[in-house]
Amino acid sequence: MQIAVVLFDRFTALDAVGPYETLGRLPDADLVFVAEERGPVRSDTGRLALVADRSFAEVPHPDIVIVPGGPGQTPQMENEALLAWLREADAHSTWTTSVCTGSLLLAAAGLLAGRRATSHWLALDFLKQFGAEPTGERVVLDGKYVTAAGVSSGIDMGLTLLGRIAGDEHAQAVQLLTEYDPQPPYDAGSPQKAPAHLVEEFRTKSRFILT
Amino acid sequence: MQIAVVLFDRFTALDAVGPYETLGRLPDADLVFVAEERGPVRSDTGRLALVADRSFAEVPHPDIVIVPGGPGQTPQMENEALLAWLREADAHSTWTTSVCTGSLLLAAAGLLAGRRATSHWLALDFLKQFGAEPTGERVVLDGKYVTAAGVSSGIDMGLTLLGRIAGDEHAQAVQLLTEYDPQPPYDAGSPQKAPAHLVEEFRTKSRFILT
Repeated sequence: MQIAVVLFDRFTALDAVGPYETLGRLPDADLVFVAEERGPVRSDTGRLALVADRSFAEVPHPDIVIVPGGPGQTPQMENEALLAWLREADAHSTWTTSVCTGSLLLAAAGLLAGRRATSHWLALDFLKQFGAEPTGERVVLDGKYVTAAGVSSGIDMGLTLLGRIAGDEHAQAVQLLTEYDPQPPYDAGSPQKAPAHLVEEFRTKSRFILT
Repeated sequence: MQIAVVLFDRFTALDAVGPYETLGRLPDADLVFVAEERGPVRSDTGRLALVADRSFAEVPHPDIVIVPGGPGQTPQMENEALLAWLREADAHSTWTTSVCTGSLLLAAAGLLAGRRATSHWLALDFLKQFGAEPTGERVVLDGKYVTAAGVSSGIDMGLTLLGRIAGDEHAQAVQLLTEYDPQPPYDAGSPQKAPAHLVEEFRTKSRFILT
């Protein structure tokens, strides 16, 4: 089963690595990192590069598509090379998935119209512009489309999809081997739980960043 | 504050990317991926390469050292280039940290003797061979040494250390922005919680892998 993880300049690394580390443990996974061109692709901090081993043209029809988000998503919304690849890949995929603002790229490609979907909490409302119905859930399945909330949610998405494809026991084995027994030192991982002034601060900033 | 994330052949990607994505969001973080030599370093699946932007020699004295684990840790236990760099870096570091079997590398370098530490649950007992005292905790602080359990625990470790260094509010902001509000679809993330036959299966396999 071929799994393509999409990279683009200034993606968020954990968006991509969470699903890679979980869903990539499918028994017959042929996982490949892809980008417009082969080679290193820098993440949003500028401090890390992941290598795209294949170009879009070399991986036209993966079984599973995984699209991360990150600040670099904004310019990609008008990158016809990416959008056209997403449309073509989606036409043949078994599952089309995203983490964080990667769902906005799926939406911009026209793939989420009329569908329930999620995104980073700061970007949820933008889904409506593309006819998608935003939800506050962490992992949303609508047909073959699986979208996850911000950054770290790709781990939950990966395990969820792993269970669907390979069975609960295989997913549990991967959870055990990745020792995914979260114990965050704070309880501030969602806008409902975090201190209100932090939520407001980022909402204010994001009005400039996302629009 | 310079943060060095160590890479070596067949490391586990999430071990490195969890702390990168959290602790790397320190306000003045100068984070750099390092390896024996510059260039792409393949993870344990062979499907992903992260780029080491600097060699060990170029980053002799980081403020924070982060050592991931993974199947490739075993041959590194006898890699004097890595062990010597760890000792020299540790002699000047403010924090020396590990995720997963990365703690065995710290231990092999002689840095954990007499200290409380943790590791991947399958590797915990090996810490004793180096005079360390294994604990079942997810994140263990002993002086400037911070060790985390398997793979995904590096996220919890990163947030914990972020709080210590930059304050609770900054750590909460990073938790909120990475939307780290875990909702695993299963409750099988530790040997205490996972189905017993899976735990036994991996314990049996690991006797061949780890010894």
